[in-house]
Amino acid sequence: MTESIGIVTPQTLHIDQPLALVSGALLPQYDLRFETYGELNAQRNNAILICHALSGDHHVAGYHEGDDKPGWWNDYIGPGKPIDTNHFFVVCSNNLGSCRGSTGPTSINPETGKVYGADFPIVTCRDWVQSQNQLRQHLAIEQWAAVVGGSMGGMQVMQWAIDYPERLRHGIVIAAALKLSAQNIAFNEVARRAIMSDPEFHEGQFIEAGTTPKGGLALARMLGHLTYLSDDMMGAKFGRELRADKLKYSFDVEFQVESYLRYQGEKFATKQNFDANTYLLMTKALDYFDPASEFGNDLSAAFAKTQAKFLVVSFTSDWRFSPARSREIVRALLDNDIDVCYAEVESEHGHDAFLLPNTHYEGIFRAYMRRVEQECAQA
Amino acid sequence: MTESIGIVTPQTLHIDQPLALVSGALLPQYDLRFETYGELNAQRNNAILICHALSGDHHVAGYHEGDDKPGWWNDYIGPGKPIDTNHFFVVCSNNLGSCRGSTGPTSINPETGKVYGADFPIVTCRDWVQSQNQLRQHLAIEQWAAVVGGSMGGMQVMQWAIDYPERLRHGIVIAAALKLSAQNIAFNEVARRAIMSDPEFHEGQFIEAGTTPKGGLALARMLGHLTYLSDDMMGAKFGRELRADKLKYSFDVEFQVESYLRYQGEKFATKQNFDANTYLLMTKALDYFDPASEFGNDLSAAFAKTQAKFLVVSFTSDWRFSPARSREIVRALLDNDIDVCYAEVESEHGHDAFLLPNTHYEGIFRAYMRRVEQECAQA
Repeated sequence: MTESIGIVTPQTLHIDQPLALVSGALLPQYDLRFETYGELNAQRNNAILICHALSGDHHVAGYHEGDDKPGWWNDYIGPGKPIDTNHFFVVCSNNLGSCRGSTGPTSINPETGKVYGADFPIVTCRDWVQSQNQLRQHLAIEQWAAVVGGSMGGMQVMQWAIDYPERLRHGIVIAAALKLSAQNIAFNEVARRAIMSDPEFHEGQFIEAGTTPKGGLALARMLGHLTYLSDDMMGAKFGRELRADKLKYSFDVEFQVESYLRYQGEKFATKQNFDANTYLLMTKALDYFDPASEFGNDLSAAFAKTQAKFLVVSFTSDWRFSPARSREIVRALLDNDIDVCYAEVESEHGHDAFLLPNTHYEGIFRAYMRRVEQECAQA
Repeated sequence: MTESIGIVTPQTLHIDQPLALVSGALLPQYDLRFETYGELNAQRNNAILICHALSGDHHVAGYHEGDDKPGWWNDYIGPGKPIDTNHFFVVCSNNLGSCRGSTGPTSINPETGKVYGADFPIVTCRDWVQSQNQLRQHLAIEQWAAVVGGSMGGMQVMQWAIDYPERLRHGIVIAAALKLSAQNIAFNEVARRAIMSDPEFHEGQFIEAGTTPKGGLALARMLGHLTYLSDDMMGAKFGRELRADKLKYSFDVEFQVESYLRYQGEKFATKQNFDANTYLLMTKALDYFDPASEFGNDLSAAFAKTQAKFLVVSFTSDWRFSPARSREIVRALLDNDIDVCYAEVESEHGHDAFLLPNTHYEGIFRAYMRRVEQECAQA
């Protein structure tokens, strides 16, 4: 990992035609905020689409003007990095329903002139992919060299391979699953309850009410964060270390791990100003993701038309989307004679590992992307 | 498992002398609510103390007048059951700080004439054991044939063996740990945040305010419940089954697992009327439990004076207190040449397995108790 992309400026694509959502609702018009890095080559065959996870956005690498923190995957995208912007044209768009620039609950509903809030329709993985396909057409890219994503991003990669099989040559699915388990759904439901039972939630119309359900959102984030980390890693990082010199025997923060989680929750709800309705929508989209349900619950049948080759990566200590869940993906792909590389990477960082530096992970990622790069050059 | 104990009537022991708590606070006087089953023999050597878990109480077996639901461990305690009341005199008391009859946050503070609420002092495992030792003296029992408990109950068993080594011949520790991990503490902290951020919490003086933080308590219980179940078991029980015939694409309950968890949370907060301050106190006592901390964090040194023999049981799918945590207990006991039997029982029921029927578990438990019984008879 060498230099970084410098200053990047987000762009906005406005789509003035309605998007028919899976739920049956119609989004009359929408914006997609996106960023690009690197250059599209003359053959227009070196474009990579990055799909983001629950709390992510389009700002995946480089720096925004005046910001000292780079995009969320800056370790893996840039000149000389696994997704090498000297060779690839990288695109990442903010998902519909988010609060980072694409149309979502904090946007103005053109039909009422008011903020959408809770009136923003439920969006699904398929809806996101449909809107990303509009972006693809706008950029005049016939076929992505690869669609890449971790966690919820990995689900979008699979949805691309199912819905637009001819539009991607490679799918890179990291720390994901073909559907949420009952336990995953249950964690999401507890998080949603925390938000929706905050008295500042106002049935989702909190922006209209001039407030935000900060407490509920912070609680949801604490719980989410807790499930992204492994027990071992939390043990190594915090153990039972106290915040003060000795036990206070009170309900104040006593252990470092409590302090850390509270800080993460509050930062998310205040400094990062994440929208509570967006959090609800993203967790729902996760719950609903189950592409095999349209194929008689046959995981293999879901990929019957898929043409892309795949890299699937999981992390040993990830208990939210464990390696066993990634192996289900690999099996479903292999059942269709799809060319798939699978790596189970040793890491103590739990689900978060997909975002963090790791020599083994980086090596696999880099080698695979080199192959994608050579194909682009040979075409 | 044959017949059940019939109708039982709880008793109350009032202790009119102050209890010096680990926190430094003094409890001026207190009640212990307890139940007994079976008969104390002439040698007074067949008494078994049962210690309860987080949301448990003294009503461990048999039926209360007019109640059609038996005590929480009725499957394992009764005539012909593993803890056979034809042979043993079984005692179980409600922990201090609870809301089921022993002095706790819902009791009147004799110093103010008002409900304790948030003024009830922090209690620890050691405080519970100290108060249970008062009950032992009251019952004129020189030595328990065994002290038995699961989860938080198992922690009390270990505390007995450390603090009153000559007062028990056997310790039975089920699905417990020598201390909570950072992850365990983090889950407790999220649950506490849920309760304390409910606007009906009123800084813990909600009884005075004429209300209860039901929403926060229900949320805490949902989260607790979720961690007591295994991913596999939730998958087998609920999978991704829908509550209605088809997806609604709304924030209503969509999947069976959501409905189940909401029901469990609401039942706990309303029908079972559990006290929110008690929930806070119990989770804190769990966080604080760490007997080795007084022995230079040497787990083995903690048991140096222990005289009892041990049965330690864990369950394969328990991820809250995993088998690895039970093996730590076994190692610490073996380091002191203590006679210990260890069983890792196959179960898909997660942490809850310690409460549920299971042939293997029952067999081990029964065999061990037969040995305890024979020792009583031979003495």
